[in-house]
Amino acid sequence: MNRIITISRQFGSGGRTIGKEVAARLGIPCYDTELILKFAEKSGLSEEYIKSYGEHVPSASWLGNILTDRDHNGRSLRDDLWCVQHEVITELAEKESCVIVGRCADFILKDNAECLHVFIHAPIEMRAERVVRLYGESDVEPVKRVLDKDKRRKSYYQFYTDAEWGNAANYDISLDSGKFGIEKCVDIIVDLYQERNLH
Amino acid sequence: MNRIITISRQFGSGGRTIGKEVAARLGIPCYDTELILKFAEKSGLSEEYIKSYGEHVPSASWLGNILTDRDHNGRSLRDDLWCVQHEVITELAEKESCVIVGRCADFILKDNAECLHVFIHAPIEMRAERVVRLYGESDVEPVKRVLDKDKRRKSYYQFYTDAEWGNAANYDISLDSGKFGIEKCVDIIVDLYQERNLH
Repeated sequence: MNRIITISRQFGSGGRTIGKEVAARLGIPCYDTELILKFAEKSGLSEEYIKSYGEHVPSASWLGNILTDRDHNGRSLRDDLWCVQHEVITELAEKESCVIVGRCADFILKDNAECLHVFIHAPIEMRAERVVRLYGESDVEPVKRVLDKDKRRKSYYQFYTDAEWGNAANYDISLDSGKFGIEKCVDIIVDLYQERNLH
Repeated sequence: MNRIITISRQFGSGGRTIGKEVAARLGIPCYDTELILKFAEKSGLSEEYIKSYGEHVPSASWLGNILTDRDHNGRSLRDDLWCVQHEVITELAEKESCVIVGRCADFILKDNAECLHVFIHAPIEMRAERVVRLYGESDVEPVKRVLDKDKRRKSYYQFYTDAEWGNAANYDISLDSGKFGIEKCVDIIVDLYQERNLH
């Protein structure tokens, strides 16, 4: 039976780094930006489009964005992309043990008992500092930039799952990577994955 | 420097049991119902009153309950009780290393860097079963009883802290005790407490 780790994360919390390290330690693949290529192949949509619309709404005024551009059946390209993402992630989970970062994988695989669903968060100041360090400055003030990205991920998640992004009860474990550090988070997740007595 | 563990928990998730076991393993006191006596001594209020109003609103129609019974300054006995709880918990943290279960201690001590803030949750079916097993049947259907108690804790927390109960970002670590089991949760918390490199 394949065993999957899904990592949901606040922007700048190091969730992606944690996912990659966990996968390396366990010798299983980590799907993060690799997913975008898979979604593009399956949907025929461009990678650029998927980057812009596949995990967060394109601006904080999300309602307008997500409700427009619909055909006469009320469907949009974004809904099609959601369906493709759902399908690809479900197939991945059937194919192999792996780590999947983001893309609402926690929700898509929520009834899969062999999953470990993780949420990574960190204090806003640490995330703002990390985002500037990793991705460079932008013309938006770092704290605002981080909060805006969180808000757009949250809106996307809520729209397509009807569940609450960041609510502890949605995940098996949530960790503050600022408090414990990246390495300790990796240790805890690897240990839980290796335990055989998960229910 | 005293080091405190606060345990917030969904009703029936085993958070209290986890708190007691963690404290026993670490050789430090655990304050749970013991707090009620301390609040009673300090406030002059009866233990019965504190049990009814000290952690959750008395019924699901909380707004009416929490906004009534106010004096001409807009204060109520419940506000006085909140202040006493705040004071007692702050004093406890200054006095000794300990585990504190519930009572919004996570919020009251949120700026204390030596704290480990834990949230325990579990799937609703497991909690309903546990509540009946531990506290016996009542005339309310178990799932409804559990959800109602959560709702009343959440309302109390939100009213006095203006923060969101159960939001992963409020805690250093959140754990699903149904997924991992009580003992594994205890192991993880004890290990994190014993680590010296908390920021």
